[in-house]
Amino acid sequence: MMFRSRFLAAALASLLTVLASGLGPAARAQTDPLPSWNDGAAKQAILAFVKQTTDQASPTFVPPAERIATFDQDGTLWVEHPLYTQIVYCLEQVPALVRQKPELAGVEPFKTVLSGDREAMGKLSDEDLLKLLSMTLTGVSVDQFRAGARQWLETARHPRWKRPYTDLTYLPMQELMKYLRASGYKTYIVTGGGQDFVRAYAEATYGIPVEQVVGTAAATKYGYDKDGKPFLTKEPRLLLNDNDAGKPEGIYLMIGRRPHAAFGNSTGDRQMLEYTTAGNGARLGMLVLHDDAVREYAYGPAQGLPDSRVGTFTQALYDEAKAKGWTVISMKSDWKRIFSFEP
Amino acid sequence: MMFRSRFLAAALASLLTVLASGLGPAARAQTDPLPSWNDGAAKQAILAFVKQTTDQASPTFVPPAERIATFDQDGTLWVEHPLYTQIVYCLEQVPALVRQKPELAGVEPFKTVLSGDREAMGKLSDEDLLKLLSMTLTGVSVDQFRAGARQWLETARHPRWKRPYTDLTYLPMQELMKYLRASGYKTYIVTGGGQDFVRAYAEATYGIPVEQVVGTAAATKYGYDKDGKPFLTKEPRLLLNDNDAGKPEGIYLMIGRRPHAAFGNSTGDRQMLEYTTAGNGARLGMLVLHDDAVREYAYGPAQGLPDSRVGTFTQALYDEAKAKGWTVISMKSDWKRIFSFEP
Repeated sequence: MMFRSRFLAAALASLLTVLASGLGPAARAQTDPLPSWNDGAAKQAILAFVKQTTDQASPTFVPPAERIATFDQDGTLWVEHPLYTQIVYCLEQVPALVRQKPELAGVEPFKTVLSGDREAMGKLSDEDLLKLLSMTLTGVSVDQFRAGARQWLETARHPRWKRPYTDLTYLPMQELMKYLRASGYKTYIVTGGGQDFVRAYAEATYGIPVEQVVGTAAATKYGYDKDGKPFLTKEPRLLLNDNDAGKPEGIYLMIGRRPHAAFGNSTGDRQMLEYTTAGNGARLGMLVLHDDAVREYAYGPAQGLPDSRVGTFTQALYDEAKAKGWTVISMKSDWKRIFSFEP
Repeated sequence: MMFRSRFLAAALASLLTVLASGLGPAARAQTDPLPSWNDGAAKQAILAFVKQTTDQASPTFVPPAERIATFDQDGTLWVEHPLYTQIVYCLEQVPALVRQKPELAGVEPFKTVLSGDREAMGKLSDEDLLKLLSMTLTGVSVDQFRAGARQWLETARHPRWKRPYTDLTYLPMQELMKYLRASGYKTYIVTGGGQDFVRAYAEATYGIPVEQVVGTAAATKYGYDKDGKPFLTKEPRLLLNDNDAGKPEGIYLMIGRRPHAAFGNSTGDRQMLEYTTAGNGARLGMLVLHDDAVREYAYGPAQGLPDSRVGTFTQALYDEAKAKGWTVISMKSDWKRIFSFEP
């Protein structure tokens, strides 16, 4: 009886839910899926795209299996200034690395990083940065790496907001990802950042499972510990540089389908948007423009700021976006709120 | 009113469904999820594993996001004798390739393939085979490749059953994949075969979407056609050799989680099973033993057959399976039916 009545209770709950949704078309229409977005071209482009691709009556309807949306991370989903979070992570690993390998203390670029001289660090060459990345991101087991990255993220704080980096995601983009998922889209991160680094927090931070994070990836090597247990070690051999043309190449390798929507904020995302929007039917390409010096940062076209190490939104990219119908999202005017911790 | 009454109808249907499931525990228990499996150790191992990992009360319960099951393809999901299907495909591409590049006609291994001498073809070196694979699988756009592979599969027939290769999947394994999916598992193919080749038919043949096919993968190159439209070309640069240790490495790269269940049939799957079953909690490792010369083929340990080009189930692997608790599936005694087109 207990058994039967539990099912009856479930049946009643189910009936009430269905009745409520039957009563609710007007109520539901008032529920804005994107409350942190101001009304404007960007928000309208998103709503129109979802309608065009999910309404069965639409000539550009997309079957659920093909609903793929890809998001760059740094500068698109979270703050990338003054430095990419992963670069900060690598720099902060250097003291521990030098304790393990004291011979590095007198060698560049480790010497400069150890000096703490921020200005000198800012002038490190790309080659030096690559050496830093390679030395601090490889040579450990994948499990150790993930645990270390998670531990670091718990204590590290952004210099401006004094908050964990994982708090510094853009609320409007979080809403957008949720809205797309609720509309049957599979959301992927396609990042120039390290795939393993982003996978360490993507599920908790964005609701994106590890298998939906595509990034710059190094090879691993299968081996055994002293007890004969198998484990994988991160190797300093690059498999995929997930920037520029590497983004569509990575998408093909890891997803195998052309996205219907792609979101970025820099020249590194250009080919991803180009590849996405070159497909048939309704496609959506959007670029986040950082033009809000007060609430976040202002850089990129018409901001009069010099290029920096972080992703660049050039004037050429801006012009191409206008020519190709990619929507530019102005943080300043399109976003009512930027962070969930601010009103 | 129309609107309201449709919702009421839906509510009633929903209520009836819930009531029916409430009435049905006894009826449901009689529905065997694996009707093509004989009762025995293999079937019991599967049923026990699913119960242990999906029953919330079980100490080895696995949250849905972590439910990953990986399947080798050739010899595990479909017939691999007398040659891997993809090798047949490559051999049959040679005449068209030589028409495009006539200078290859007098060069090995193309000369031997063109001769049609099966015995000579069987003696081609691994190096020659790699050259054949590289020349017939690359240099085209990814869209052309997928279309070509699909077209070939429509007309190609297996020499023994005179049926499309995609008919030659094992019914018990299809049931197993469906049962695992119904139990919240995400099923992946992790194949030594070409990722692009398997992706051409995995969805229609196995119900496995392209993004859940991990295989031996070559790089692609992003470029533009004469109208400025972007496309990807298959390059002869190997990114991932998805055999042996390459399987756990590929799983880490593409899935990022350790599987809870893994299925194979040869030494090429050894490390995948080892990596899977070395994890904590309930794990399932199974190997298909081809010991049914009448209904399929007999090869491997105790079959007294010499090794062939296709995956080998060595005596050493058999012994390791027994030692490590991996279940060996006997096609002859564990499978009531092998193909859906046979009784």
